[in-house]
Amino acid sequence: MTVTLVGAGPGDPELITVRGLDRLRTCDAVVYDTLVAPELVDEAPPDALRIPRDGLGQERIDELLVHLGRQGLDVVRLKGGDPYLFGRGGEEALALAAAGVPFEVVPGVSSLAAVPAAADIPVTHRGVADTVTLTTAHGAGGSEPDYVALVAAGGTLVLFMGLGRLQALSDGLVAAGLAPDTLAAVISRGTLPDQQVVTAPLAGIAAAADGLSAPALVVIGDVVSIRAELEATGPRSPATPAGVSRAPA
Amino acid sequence: MTVTLVGAGPGDPELITVRGLDRLRTCDAVVYDTLVAPELVDEAPPDALRIPRDGLGQERIDELLVHLGRQGLDVVRLKGGDPYLFGRGGEEALALAAAGVPFEVVPGVSSLAAVPAAADIPVTHRGVADTVTLTTAHGAGGSEPDYVALVAAGGTLVLFMGLGRLQALSDGLVAAGLAPDTLAAVISRGTLPDQQVVTAPLAGIAAAADGLSAPALVVIGDVVSIRAELEATGPRSPATPAGVSRAPA
Repeated sequence: MTVTLVGAGPGDPELITVRGLDRLRTCDAVVYDTLVAPELVDEAPPDALRIPRDGLGQERIDELLVHLGRQGLDVVRLKGGDPYLFGRGGEEALALAAAGVPFEVVPGVSSLAAVPAAADIPVTHRGVADTVTLTTAHGAGGSEPDYVALVAAGGTLVLFMGLGRLQALSDGLVAAGLAPDTLAAVISRGTLPDQQVVTAPLAGIAAAADGLSAPALVVIGDVVSIRAELEATGPRSPATPAGVSRAPA
Repeated sequence: MTVTLVGAGPGDPELITVRGLDRLRTCDAVVYDTLVAPELVDEAPPDALRIPRDGLGQERIDELLVHLGRQGLDVVRLKGGDPYLFGRGGEEALALAAAGVPFEVVPGVSSLAAVPAAADIPVTHRGVADTVTLTTAHGAGGSEPDYVALVAAGGTLVLFMGLGRLQALSDGLVAAGLAPDTLAAVISRGTLPDQQVVTAPLAGIAAAADGLSAPALVVIGDVVSIRAELEATGPRSPATPAGVSRAPA
């Protein structure tokens, strides 16, 4: 009996790790996030218990994992991205540790770099950015993020956020001193077949991203310019699955 | 003919993605970093060309990838971690794009969260840290990093660095205003069977980490305290492969 917190990766089901897929294929029960690819849930054995997390708050999930683990089951908790990077896996791990239920963490590919990569944006690049700051677009307790601190950090900003907050984010960063013409990108449904990407100067990014679907990742900084360079010799094929490959014309 | 930049993950060979392993198993040539697990290089077909990058500068690698791609080969460029996060994959992609060689990027599990996870440290945690700043421990051109900016960013700091610079880092951060008793962890050879972890207040971390082996990742911030909580109910088994699983006693 082990509860394994598995990172499913950024969306594209082939971006799960070999170990993560192995754990999934041999589990007795899988508790999965809404945004996880259905193809991955299908990889669990046919007779495995399948429990979507929809509608369950974090405390209920913690209790559920402890309950399933205590029944002696091998449980996979399948989470988008990486369990320990904006994944609240730490809370689940603490609940399991406190209950004496053995657990394991199998890290996953975070959206942080994989989603920008699918839009031809490296989040670090020599001579352009050697620092990356990741945050959600709300501070602790739902307050505004500390825009001054984010601007002070320099380098590339990567934000995991709801699109509805994009104008407030842009306004906040500009008020904190970030140049309004700093390049920004919004990547909607990154690594999935219906991925969409818009780029614009920060001051215009909220308007440019109007109508895009969740989930979305926002990248702000000079690295966004590399996308144009990488695509200068030929357009990305719109048929490219998952947006992680391209072939110049 | 495609050159595929594949992220091999943080060290443990089972943390490569399903797609990355697939590309590797069907390639004509693999150009691999020194730190990549030998088990992964062994996954290339027996007759595939195997080229270690040892001793090759970045420009030579860029040229080599273009050369191999132009010969019509399916080439895997196997890189530690993720190609676009401190991996210099952007430089290789630009060289390939400029030469008109089709390329693809398969993201990998970055050490950023996976190595702290292997030491029972979630880099974000509700009520503790919702921002993470990643950097190398040297600024552009080998200068000192901007310690004031790093401290201003708040949240968790994750540094990809040589251990020899740890005292300078600690001194610089304290001089920039970070409390000397801020918790820090150094994880040596994270996710590998010989992983070692030390934790100490920032002011003492360089002394505590003396003698550890490269590569090492440094984590600074309150999230380091979660390690003790997760391990309070039972010690991590020293026999645990890769340090990514644990079973309370």
